[in-house]
This record gives sequence, structure tokens and C-alpha cells, in this order.
Amino acid sequence: MTNHQPRVKELSAFMLTPMNESGVDEKAFIRMLQRLVDARVDSIGVLGSTGSYGYLTLQARKRITKLALEHADGIPVMVGVGALRTRDVLELTEDAQKAGASELLLAPVSYQKLTDDEVWHLYDTVNRHLAVPLCVYDNPVTTHFSFSDELHGRLAQLSHIASIKIPGVPDDAAAAAARVARLRALIPPTVSIGVSGDAFALRGLNAGCDLWYSVLAGVFPAVCRRLVSLAAQGESRLTPEMDARLQPVWALFQRYGSLRVVAEMAAQLALTQQDSLPLPLRRIDSEGVAAVKAIVPLLTA
Amino acid sequence: MTNHQPRVKELSAFMLTPMNESGVDEKAFIRMLQRLVDARVDSIGVLGSTGSYGYLTLQARKRITKLALEHADGIPVMVGVGALRTRDVLELTEDAQKAGASELLLAPVSYQKLTDDEVWHLYDTVNRHLAVPLCVYDNPVTTHFSFSDELHGRLAQLSHIASIKIPGVPDDAAAAAARVARLRALIPPTVSIGVSGDAFALRGLNAGCDLWYSVLAGVFPAVCRRLVSLAAQGESRLTPEMDARLQPVWALFQRYGSLRVVAEMAAQLALTQQDSLPLPLRRIDSEGVAAVKAIVPLLTA
Repeated sequence: MTNHQPRVKELSAFMLTPMNESGVDEKAFIRMLQRLVDARVDSIGVLGSTGSYGYLTLQARKRITKLALEHADGIPVMVGVGALRTRDVLELTEDAQKAGASELLLAPVSYQKLTDDEVWHLYDTVNRHLAVPLCVYDNPVTTHFSFSDELHGRLAQLSHIASIKIPGVPDDAAAAAARVARLRALIPPTVSIGVSGDAFALRGLNAGCDLWYSVLAGVFPAVCRRLVSLAAQGESRLTPEMDARLQPVWALFQRYGSLRVVAEMAAQLALTQQDSLPLPLRRIDSEGVAAVKAIVPLLTA
Repeated sequence: MTNHQPRVKELSAFMLTPMNESGVDEKAFIRMLQRLVDARVDSIGVLGSTGSYGYLTLQARKRITKLALEHADGIPVMVGVGALRTRDVLELTEDAQKAGASELLLAPVSYQKLTDDEVWHLYDTVNRHLAVPLCVYDNPVTTHFSFSDELHGRLAQLSHIASIKIPGVPDDAAAAAARVARLRALIPPTVSIGVSGDAFALRGLNAGCDLWYSVLAGVFPAVCRRLVSLAAQGESRLTPEMDARLQPVWALFQRYGSLRVVAEMAAQLALTQQDSLPLPLRRIDSEGVAAVKAIVPLLTA
């Protein structure tokens, strides 16, 4: 998870939190967690965006944290503690640490657009309450806050900041490497950079990211492990066989949002009930369902 | 509030919910509400964006709703019921109706970006639980959902939709009138259109909006009443004297966000404590504080 030896490529698998209008489907959650334990991913992320943290009460989040730590079989667990209010972030931080989380993940969630100063103070405040490492979660699509590299650099000086989860890298390999190098120059060598946005994974890892914070790995850890191995071997392109499997996945992520797609995948694998997202989020349309049906066997093979 | 006779211009004043990390400052809330009652605004909006609804627990929101209805002295009260989850929206809807709200206000709040279909189902579901009118709250800056006019048209056919709160109108008077006319053509005549974004108020009212959903009126109802009177008289421009008072306000709203500015105004008027926003939101910087100090006396005069 926290990577103090740059260039070792790791896979961090982010889990769904299957639920319905009555509550969380704990059995399904444990079933999915068991798959990640069996695959020995490098770390497990719970209550990230894919884990619908924003849609859960503090109480439900504490319960999920406890469940994850009980069933992770020694694999490090990163727990998302983001919330609209600082006081809720602090409460979740305290709880996750007490429960035994290996690392925390914090996004600057917003309703009112946040200023750089407000985001700085948020992380500085949380940092004062930390006993474990914290990953800065940079996800402008969901938080509507765009980090400058300068702000990342300032935050990375805080004592417990151990990783930055970036949303992606530019299309061009040289531009991607330059983007990661620019950020790396501003942060201590002990702080890792993880690429998010699964379609960018290989490009990001090749560009110098240390790990992949992966949505797809929450449901298909094995195929994602292979992708990370390729990157660790210095391969800059997927094998044609893997490319054929994964390009349609990234296209669906782009069209429907990765959360809705992996939720449908989990349902088709009978890991969860058919509807496992919190309303108003809904199952993808019939065209998407058919596309997932065509892809799932290829990812399981 | 709900305006079944287009062209009568109304003022709906949106209130702050002053709070700190321990809870809501109920005394300050009632004090501010009393100002609006004294000014006899046409309606009072509570738990809108200015009321920090997204930052409050369901329990705190129910308490604020109850307080507002106890102290509104017969002035119609519109209550914001937006939340990330449909089930929370339904719970708040039931509570606000039981408490006696005159109208509800619902924004399609998001963490994961919502589809048109998801937003349609959200409003359709809520509509089935309504006994009072509902205002569709279109605020892409905070919700990150952009309504098409076509979707507004579909939603406005739902039995209890009574108003649309639009974020603003184009700069040019003719373009603004065309924009409101385009929307008006798609909705029943009983559905009112209210302009939000205070800087657009006069332009919006002149362009055919029925009412002004106003942030500034929550603290300075009298000056906002005068602006609405001008519009009702068909005046297309502020008097030079009002323009001199209000332009600096809109400039501060633009720079700091209207919430932070009205919170500072309320503090300087001693209506609230100095810090009344939920962290991570913070007081505006010293330059902003000085600018508010210069403006407040002009708005009170």
C-alpha cells in the first residue's frame, strides 16, 4: 500500500459495498472480500467511491470497516474516511484507526466548492489525529475539487501523508511520465503515487506510478494482477489478448461510470443481488447489461 | 411562493443555518428568521444551499424545519429535502410535510454523477409521496447535474411540481427573455420560474421569472424587496444608488461564494457568532472581511 520503494508495482483492489434501501448486504460484502483475500491482492480499499462511502451513515461505515478488518486475513486494508464535514471525517478517522485500518483514504468531498486553503486545513487537521498513514484522494469528478501540484506538494509534507491517488495521466507516454515526474519532484520520496481511473492503469504504472488503485480489481483481481505484473516487467503495452478483454471494460466505465459497471458485473457473478446500488443510482440499461454479459466470461477465464 | 399568476414578482428569502462543530445555533437561527418575518418577505426558504442542508444530519434538519415553522408567523416556508440518497429524501419529505411546510425544494445532489434517467426517477418517486408543492432546484455548481430544458419539461408535468429554481439567465436581456420563454413553453402555466444567483435577479425577473429565490434577502430583506418592486414596475435597471450598493455584493459573491459572504454579513450584524459555517468551510480572508465591513452599512441604511 504505502510504497517506500518506488518501482515495486502494487495492486490495491477497491471494493463495492452492496446495499439496498434497507441496508448493507453484509454477506455479499464478505463474499467479495474473500475473493480478494484468495487472490492475495497487495491491499484492499473499502469505502472508497466504489464503496459508496458518501451514501452511507457514519454508523454503517463503522460497521463495514469492522467487517473488512475481521475478514482481510492480514492483507492491509485502506479505509475511506471522506465526508462533507470535518467533524465527521475526524470521527471516522478515530474509528477506523481503533478498528485497525492500515491506512486511511481522504477525499475533499464538497457541496460548496472548497478553496485551496480550506482543503489544506482539512488535511492538516486530520493529520494531527493520525496514527496510521493517509492517502490523499484526488478525484475531481466526484469531489469537484482540483488539486494543484503545488497543493499536493504542501500536503505531502504533512507527517502522515503516505500516498497520492491521482485520477489518471495524459494519453501520451512521454507526457504521462512528465506529469508523474513533476508531481514526484514536489513530494518526499517516501510518498507513493497511485494511479486511479482503471483505463489509465498501465500507462500510469509505466509513467512511474507505484501502484494501481483499482476499481476492476474489486471484482476481477486476477486479471488486474496480470496487468500489474506486465507493468512491473517494464511492458508498455497490454498483450493483444488482454487488450481485447480490457478495452471493452474501459469503454463501459466511460459510458456508465465504473461503479455502475462493476456493480452489474458483481451481480452477474452472483456475488450480489441484482440491484446493489443506493437509489437514486440505478442499474445500467439493457444494452449495458448485455455488454457486461459478453465481457464477464472473458474476465473470469 | 408557488405562483399561479405569472408576472406578480415575489421575494423568497433563503436563510443561513448558523452552526459550529458542536451543533446548530438555534437562537441565532430564530433571530434571523424574525428579521424576515418583520420584513414580511413573500416566503422563507430554509435548508437550501445557503442553509447548509448537505452538512446537517437528518435529525438536525428535522429540528430546523420544526423551528422555522414555529416562528414563521404564517409566512410560507419552503424546506429543502435534498440528500444523496433517495431514502433520506423520502424521510425528510415526510417529516417536512408533517411539520407543516408550505412547499419543498429538491436538488439532485450527487457524489456519483447522475444520469437524466436517475434524476427523473428521483423526482417521480418523491412526487408520489407529496401532499404539498415541490420546487425543482437546478443548481449545477453544487449538484453537478445539468438539467436540460427537455427534462425540466418532463418533470414539470408531475402532479406536485410547482416551481423551478433556475441558476441564472444570460447576460443579454433579449437572450435572457428567450431563455425563460423557451423553458416556459415546455412547462404548465401553473409552474412558476424563480431566478437564483442573486446577481441575475433583476435581469431574471425582467426576463419573465416570477420570483427571486434570494440568498442576500436572508440577511437583508428590505433592500431585496426594493429590487423586486423595481422589477414589478417594469424597471429594467437598478437605480444608480441601488446599483452602487449591490454591485460590490455580487462581486464578493462571485469571489468567495455567496454562502461565505452572507455568513460574514450575518456575523458583522451580530446576528450570529463570528464563525457560523461547518468546517471545512471557513471564514473569508481579511480582505473579504474588510470589503464586507464597507458594504454592510450601505445595505442596512
